[in-house]
Amino acid sequence: MTQLISKLQWRYATKKYDPARVVPHDKLERIVEAIRLAPTSSGLQPFELIVIRNPELRRKILPLAYGQPQVAECSHLLVLAAWADVTAERIDMMFDLTNTERGSTNEGWEAYRQVLIARHTGQDAEANFQFAARQAYIGLGAGLIAAAFEEVDSTPMEGFDAAALDELLGLPARQLRSVSMLALGYREAAGDWLVGLKKVRRPREDFVTDLA
Amino acid sequence: MTQLISKLQWRYATKKYDPARVVPHDKLERIVEAIRLAPTSSGLQPFELIVIRNPELRRKILPLAYGQPQVAECSHLLVLAAWADVTAERIDMMFDLTNTERGSTNEGWEAYRQVLIARHTGQDAEANFQFAARQAYIGLGAGLIAAAFEEVDSTPMEGFDAAALDELLGLPARQLRSVSMLALGYREAAGDWLVGLKKVRRPREDFVTDLA
Repeated sequence: MTQLISKLQWRYATKKYDPARVVPHDKLERIVEAIRLAPTSSGLQPFELIVIRNPELRRKILPLAYGQPQVAECSHLLVLAAWADVTAERIDMMFDLTNTERGSTNEGWEAYRQVLIARHTGQDAEANFQFAARQAYIGLGAGLIAAAFEEVDSTPMEGFDAAALDELLGLPARQLRSVSMLALGYREAAGDWLVGLKKVRRPREDFVTDLA
Repeated sequence: MTQLISKLQWRYATKKYDPARVVPHDKLERIVEAIRLAPTSSGLQPFELIVIRNPELRRKILPLAYGQPQVAECSHLLVLAAWADVTAERIDMMFDLTNTERGSTNEGWEAYRQVLIARHTGQDAEANFQFAARQAYIGLGAGLIAAAFEEVDSTPMEGFDAAALDELLGLPARQLRSVSMLALGYREAAGDWLVGLKKVRRPREDFVTDLA
């Protein structure tokens, strides 16, 4: 078994954290960095990451997440927030950054900028948000794999009142909408109903179609 | 730099593949396994994976992907196809599988099955599909990281006519809708305009908000 597969086998959606244990700064930063480096469609990175350590704030989030204790008991709560819309300004921001970073541009790239602007301004905000939300989930995948590599437990969480969380975090003013949370910390195995249970996935033959 | 970060730095969206080089079976299977092991909301795994080596079929896909040469020149083309709807039958399938695999069940878990059935049958197919598509993107993230660990080049691709691809692959009859492709193979660096260019991501301060 390779290291990546063993990490994917090791991780599980932690249900109970030890609130006394804090993820060290260097580990947290590497998890954040993996999310930052995750690829996205056309390199737009149409999402942002909110990293919440503040216990008081997390206690406010708790009822918005239907009382799921991980929110309060974990070490850090990450919120992935997708662009509420993909605007020409945002596309320009990424293309301009890319040109600056690369110290050059070219005709094909600039033509592609216009293709993307036409595509995204030609569809409604909700379609753009759904596009952006999917990209955020690539980051979610990278983040939970990175956590496993750091031997940090994690819980991807979708069960929360996104509109209420957005208000609490001031996301509407930033044209962002929360799509997922990722709790990070260390399991308290004694109180975790899932930790001892077998990981279940559909067998390969029910999940994969080979067209050779 | 940790291994995962270095793999994320190494990978890029390959634009030109060497059509003569084939990904070995064991590497391909580990990439598929990483996608299969990727976590999903409530463990539903609401997507499937189609693995296409068949060159003739990939030549038929080429025009549906607007002539992007990777489709034909890569070694294997993976298609991630999300559930077109999340039905009670599909939820039952995963809960029944989980009970069988774990050799037990419990009241809380069975109550949760009913919560999920009520939630997903209470919203329309499109909302369920958008939910499923996001989960597939966690798998996409796992797959492209797994490829990097295998030193296999990859290209996540969204630029294709999904409805036409679905028809070609017979997905409507299986209640599946393609959401992304992932080309796998080996770069032909000489013809790849992107290979030498700097990877660009927004700096941490523009991407992350710390609420300490």
